[in-house]
Amino acid sequence: MPQPAVHITPDPTLRHRIADATLTVLGPDSRPLADVDVVVAQRRHRFLFGNIGFEFIPLANDEIGGGENESAYAGAPANQPAALAELWFDLFNAATLPFYWAGFEPTPGHPDTARLMRTAQWFNDRGVVVKGHPLVWHTLTAPWLLELTNEEIERAQRERIRRDVGGFAGVIDTWDAINEAVIMPVFDKEDNGITRICRANGRIATVRMAFEEARVANPRATLLLNDFDMSTAYECLIEGVLEAGIQVDVLGLQSHMHQGYWGEEKTLAILDRFSRYGLPIHFTESTLVSGHLMPPEVEDLNDYQVESWPSTPEGEERQADEIVRHYRTLLSHPSVEGVTYWGIADAGSWLGAPCGLVRADGTPKPSYEALRSLVKGEWWLPPTTLRTDDAGRVRLSGFLGDYEVSSGSGSARFELAQAGEVACEVRLSLPAA
Amino acid sequence: MPQPAVHITPDPTLRHRIADATLTVLGPDSRPLADVDVVVAQRRHRFLFGNIGFEFIPLANDEIGGGENESAYAGAPANQPAALAELWFDLFNAATLPFYWAGFEPTPGHPDTARLMRTAQWFNDRGVVVKGHPLVWHTLTAPWLLELTNEEIERAQRERIRRDVGGFAGVIDTWDAINEAVIMPVFDKEDNGITRICRANGRIATVRMAFEEARVANPRATLLLNDFDMSTAYECLIEGVLEAGIQVDVLGLQSHMHQGYWGEEKTLAILDRFSRYGLPIHFTESTLVSGHLMPPEVEDLNDYQVESWPSTPEGEERQADEIVRHYRTLLSHPSVEGVTYWGIADAGSWLGAPCGLVRADGTPKPSYEALRSLVKGEWWLPPTTLRTDDAGRVRLSGFLGDYEVSSGSGSARFELAQAGEVACEVRLSLPAA
Repeated sequence: MPQPAVHITPDPTLRHRIADATLTVLGPDSRPLADVDVVVAQRRHRFLFGNIGFEFIPLANDEIGGGENESAYAGAPANQPAALAELWFDLFNAATLPFYWAGFEPTPGHPDTARLMRTAQWFNDRGVVVKGHPLVWHTLTAPWLLELTNEEIERAQRERIRRDVGGFAGVIDTWDAINEAVIMPVFDKEDNGITRICRANGRIATVRMAFEEARVANPRATLLLNDFDMSTAYECLIEGVLEAGIQVDVLGLQSHMHQGYWGEEKTLAILDRFSRYGLPIHFTESTLVSGHLMPPEVEDLNDYQVESWPSTPEGEERQADEIVRHYRTLLSHPSVEGVTYWGIADAGSWLGAPCGLVRADGTPKPSYEALRSLVKGEWWLPPTTLRTDDAGRVRLSGFLGDYEVSSGSGSARFELAQAGEVACEVRLSLPAA
Repeated sequence: MPQPAVHITPDPTLRHRIADATLTVLGPDSRPLADVDVVVAQRRHRFLFGNIGFEFIPLANDEIGGGENESAYAGAPANQPAALAELWFDLFNAATLPFYWAGFEPTPGHPDTARLMRTAQWFNDRGVVVKGHPLVWHTLTAPWLLELTNEEIERAQRERIRRDVGGFAGVIDTWDAINEAVIMPVFDKEDNGITRICRANGRIATVRMAFEEARVANPRATLLLNDFDMSTAYECLIEGVLEAGIQVDVLGLQSHMHQGYWGEEKTLAILDRFSRYGLPIHFTESTLVSGHLMPPEVEDLNDYQVESWPSTPEGEERQADEIVRHYRTLLSHPSVEGVTYWGIADAGSWLGAPCGLVRADGTPKPSYEALRSLVKGEWWLPPTTLRTDDAGRVRLSGFLGDYEVSSGSGSARFELAQAGEVACEVRLSLPAA
C-alpha cells in the first residue's frame, strides 16, 4: 500500500552523501596501530554513476571489428574499443545493457543470451553493477509478436521475462521492468504487440505483469518503473501502481535533453514531485548534446533526422558546464541513488547526436573531464596519508562507498555506508605473499 | 475490478439513439383502438442536454433583483430572468448547480442549503434532472480549511460530502464527486486545504474519500469523476482508480473551448481513448465562444483577463456552426450519455467570455437556434398524427425518451428506452375531468 507522501529537501552541500568517520586501525595482531602513518583511499562510490555499455558487447566477446551482430541502439563501432573502455571504467560503476526484444531475440527461441552474459560478466569482473534494459517496451519489441493473438503475446512476454531475469540472476540483478508505460497503450507510431496487450489489459495490469514475473524469477532483483513522461501522467500512473500493491523498488526518470538542459529549477521541481512517494530515484537516461540543440517543436525525439550533427567547441563548453550543474543538482537530492548517462562516445550515438563525453575520434570532451573532476575529484578521496592517534584512530570525511586503508603492516577494505558521524574499525591483513 | 478494454465505434447516423417502435394503442377499455387517428409527441429526451443553472438561483428563490447572496461563478444577473428561463427550459433537461465550497459555506456551519434546495426543486418541478458540482475541488474550496490541520481538513471534507449528498438525496442524485484530481496535489496557484490533503494522501485516496462518502450518503446517486485534463494523465488516473476498486458511475470530460473548437478528429480521438473503460461519458463543461478566441499560449484559462470580450456577428455564426458539429460528434459516440453546455447567457459568464447561447441583451444567438433545431427539431418527434391499423398499432421512429400518445379517447405516456426494433403497448386514460 502507498506510503503517505514524504517531503525531502535537497542539500547542495551533499552532507547526506558524506560520512564523517572515526576509523580505528588495528594491526594484523588486532592491536591498535598507534601513531603511525596510514594511507586511506576511496575505491568505489556507493552512488551509481552509470552509463550504457552497449558499445562494449563486441569487445567483451572478443569479436574483432564487431558490428555483425549488433543490437539496435548498439552504440559506437568498436574502433579503439579498449581505449574507450579505459575511459569508461575510470568514471562509471554501473552499466546499462540492451535487452530490446527486437535485437535480443530476432527469431523466436534464439535469444542473444550468451553474448549478453559474457558482456555482463565482463562488467561485473571490473566491479561494475549491470542493469538490463528493458523487459517490457512497445518500441523495439519483437516484431514477430504481431503474428500472435493477444493471449499468446502476453504468454510470450511473461516467458521472456522469466527466462531472462532468471537466467541472468546473480550477474544482472537490476532491471528496467517496464519502459514508458504512460504512452504504451496509446502509442500510435507503429502497430506492435505490446501496445496491443497494454491497450487491452490496461497500464496497471501490464506493469503488474512485468513486476510479478521478474520478482518471481529473481526475488533479489531491483526492479525499476521507467518513463520519459515527467508530467502528472507519470505521477498518476505511479499512484495507481502503488495503490494496486505492486512493489516498485526504484522510480526511473529519463532525461534526454537533446532540446536543451532542463536547468536546476525544473530538475528540482521534478524531483520534488517524484520523491514524494518515498521511493529511490534513478535518473536512468541522461543526455546533453555538445552541438546545436534539437528544435523545441519536435515532440518525439525520434522524428528528428539530420544528415550530420557535429560536436562544436562552443557546444562542448556548454555541455561540460551543464553536465556539472546536472549532476550537482541530482546529487543534492537525497532520493537520487543513481544517474546513468546515455552513451560515452559520439560514434553510433542515438539519433546521431553529439551527446557523448568522448568525440568520434576517441578524445575526451570537456564534459568528460568535468564529470571526472567531480566523480574522481571533488567527490572522491584520493590516497591520503593520515596519522593515527594513540588509540590507532584517524578521522576522515568521504563520500559513501568502499575504501582501503594501508600501512607498512598491511591493508584492509572498509565501507562508509551511512552519512554523518560514524565509527568503524578495521584490521589490516598482510598482502598474500 | 477494471473491465477489459472495450472498443466502441461512433455512428454519425445515431441509430444507437433511435427506437423503431411498434406501438399498440388500447382504449380505456383495454381494447385495441383500431383504425383511428392518434397523435404521438415526444415529451423528453433520455439523452441529457444540460446547462448550468447558476443564474436561476435568485429566480427560484423569489429574490427580486438577486445578486446579494450569489456564489462564485454565479452566472448572469437576474435581469429578464423569466424570459431567460423560458429559453433555458425549451432546450435543456439537465441542470448543474454550484456547490463550490467557498460560496456554499463561507462560514463553517452555515451552508447555503435552503437556497440550493429550492433551486434544485424548482428545476425538478420542471422535469429537469439536477447535478451538484463539485463535492471535492481545490479551487473555490472553503478558505477556512487553511486554519485546520490535514486531519481536520479531511474530516471536514468528509462531513461536508455526507451532509450535502445525504441532505439533497431525492432532489439531487447526481454529483461531480471530485473535480480535477489530476492537477489537485500539484496545483500551485494558491495554497488551499484540498491540495494539501491530496498531496499528503495521494490522488487515489482522495478520489476514494469522495466516492465512498457520497456513496454511503446516497447509494442511488450517480457519481462522476470529472477532469479537464484530456491527456494520458487522466487515463492513468482512471486506471488507478478502477484498479483500486472505486466504483465510478460516469466519466466527466470537460471541454472549455475558449481557445477554439476541438474539431471532430480530436473529439473522436478523445472519446476513443476514454470510452475504452466501458463507462458512460458525460461532456460536463462544454464552451464555445462567439467572439475572438483566447490565444493558444494561455495555459490556465483563468489567467486570461480582458476588459471586454464582445460577441461578434462572425463569431456567432462560427459558434452556431461549431455547436452543431460538437453535438453531432458527441451524440455519434454511443458512450456519451450527456452534454452540459457551460452557461446560457453571456452576462456574468465565466471569464467574461461570450460563450452563452443568449446575448447580454437577452436575445438568442444563432447557436441557440442551431442547437434547438437539433434537440427539438431533427432529433425530436413533434406532435404527429398516425393512423392505427386494425390491431390498434402504429409505427414510429424516435429518439430515446418519453412520449405521449393521445386520441379522442384519452392519452397515455410511454417511454422509448431501447434503440432498434421495439414493441410496446399503452392504454389511454381519459383526462381527469
